[in-house]
Amino acid sequence: MDLGFVGLGLMGRPMVLNLLKAGHSVRVWARREAALAPVVAAGAVACESLAAVAEGATVVFSCVADAPDVAQVADGVAEGAAAGLVFADMSTIAPAAARDIAARLAERGVRMLDAPVSGGEVGAIAGTLTIMVGGDADAFEIARPAFAAMGKSVNRVGESGAGQVAKACNQILTGVGVAAVAEALNFAQKSGVDPARVREALLGGFAYSRILENHGQRMLDRNFKPGFKAWMHQKDMRIVMEEAHQLGLALPAAAVTAQMFNALVGSGMGEDDSIAMLKLLEAMSGGAEA
Amino acid sequence: MDLGFVGLGLMGRPMVLNLLKAGHSVRVWARREAALAPVVAAGAVACESLAAVAEGATVVFSCVADAPDVAQVADGVAEGAAAGLVFADMSTIAPAAARDIAARLAERGVRMLDAPVSGGEVGAIAGTLTIMVGGDADAFEIARPAFAAMGKSVNRVGESGAGQVAKACNQILTGVGVAAVAEALNFAQKSGVDPARVREALLGGFAYSRILENHGQRMLDRNFKPGFKAWMHQKDMRIVMEEAHQLGLALPAAAVTAQMFNALVGSGMGEDDSIAMLKLLEAMSGGAEA
Repeated sequence: MDLGFVGLGLMGRPMVLNLLKAGHSVRVWARREAALAPVVAAGAVACESLAAVAEGATVVFSCVADAPDVAQVADGVAEGAAAGLVFADMSTIAPAAARDIAARLAERGVRMLDAPVSGGEVGAIAGTLTIMVGGDADAFEIARPAFAAMGKSVNRVGESGAGQVAKACNQILTGVGVAAVAEALNFAQKSGVDPARVREALLGGFAYSRILENHGQRMLDRNFKPGFKAWMHQKDMRIVMEEAHQLGLALPAAAVTAQMFNALVGSGMGEDDSIAMLKLLEAMSGGAEA
Repeated sequence: MDLGFVGLGLMGRPMVLNLLKAGHSVRVWARREAALAPVVAAGAVACESLAAVAEGATVVFSCVADAPDVAQVADGVAEGAAAGLVFADMSTIAPAAARDIAARLAERGVRMLDAPVSGGEVGAIAGTLTIMVGGDADAFEIARPAFAAMGKSVNRVGESGAGQVAKACNQILTGVGVAAVAEALNFAQKSGVDPARVREALLGGFAYSRILENHGQRMLDRNFKPGFKAWMHQKDMRIVMEEAHQLGLALPAAAVTAQMFNALVGSGMGEDDSIAMLKLLEAMSGGAEA
């Protein structure tokens, strides 16, 4: 398929490489020359403008930092778009922002999908991302083969914004999950019981989660390398809490977790993986020893 | 093996039936005649006193409500115990209380294991409980074949009290997990997105947990029948928070979850399953509809 891709960062670069590997042709644009080199070397075509990325493309993807970036990319892409172009934004932004951008693009004949991902850099490289999609069903079917090259769990959840809502739910579950696992392992340690044996005993029961299995093991290994950086989870929890504020919705466990991410970043651990939550709790209880 | 069992409630009764099915002989005692009938019909031997349950037994199990009950059963059992008897308490009590009772029994030649369980009535009936054991390694090996008849995940976690510490960790993870799933599904619903499709999209990624899979489905089915009653999880969270207070340990996510269980019981939903957490959040945000 003829594709475009904007946003060649930690996530975007390996996603483009997987699209090329699956046989798609990919037109790319980046502000920095350096970001282009590795994907052009693998066969992507560098363009001079956002509009040029859209020319002749069936689907243009973006994977950037925040809502204003998405809006800017969307504007540029719309300039070069043929009628019916699908614009699939894979960034994590607020559901309301995604719906606004989609509505503006619709007036210009571009169909937008919000398609945020979960799984981190590891998942982007392996092509095993979870992709949560909101928007028109026909547009989703057009983009589906390309999504399949980047993710292993690809689901259309509902209309415009629904992908971002699902991502927000994902960040509630993973953020609160990391907090719970960190609290449990620190509780075991401070009670004089080996947290590794507690984790092992609990994996077979209702306490099982992928967070306990994967992130729990990394906590035991004291491997705080990202993965998924604490400041990024902090940003995502801010989106969740702002959305909850708009909806008049109480999220007690997510709220306290958002505060813990604030404390994590405030303690200088923002560049660590979000599992540095364990170090925060340890610092609040006399250190890592029992 | 010659076994004794005290505490023939919702959990204890099916556990005794599984011991009998596995070919063990089981001596039982209960305050109420009615509690005895179903296990005696299946082959258990009714005794006149706690001391009589212990006579000739290699291991005596108990599964009762709270620490004072365990202490009382332990006293009675010690009266009839031959030297070296293993007393395996499967109730959920505070780690410190378990260690105290174990120390007093040790003076009378009885070896105590703390062996609380997870998996609820369903797990007790199916013989698929998670059993978390603290105490002497030799005593654990003696009791292991009997544990294997009641649970599928049986682990010795450490010395006396370690089983209760693991159970506390389990209740942190499952309690906070239920809160997080309830918050995420209510967030989706109030955002106008089908919570069933959100759950489906997230099951394939890092947000996967057995709580999202099982309890999440029951929330969608609005099946609030226990399972595991909210007031019981409230009780277990009280043990966790008291222990954290003793240890000088902050558990922010567990603390807010404990408060939500308080609110659940205070709202008259204590006899519902702990997943009634969803109804509590709905009541705080205008009801079950979007």
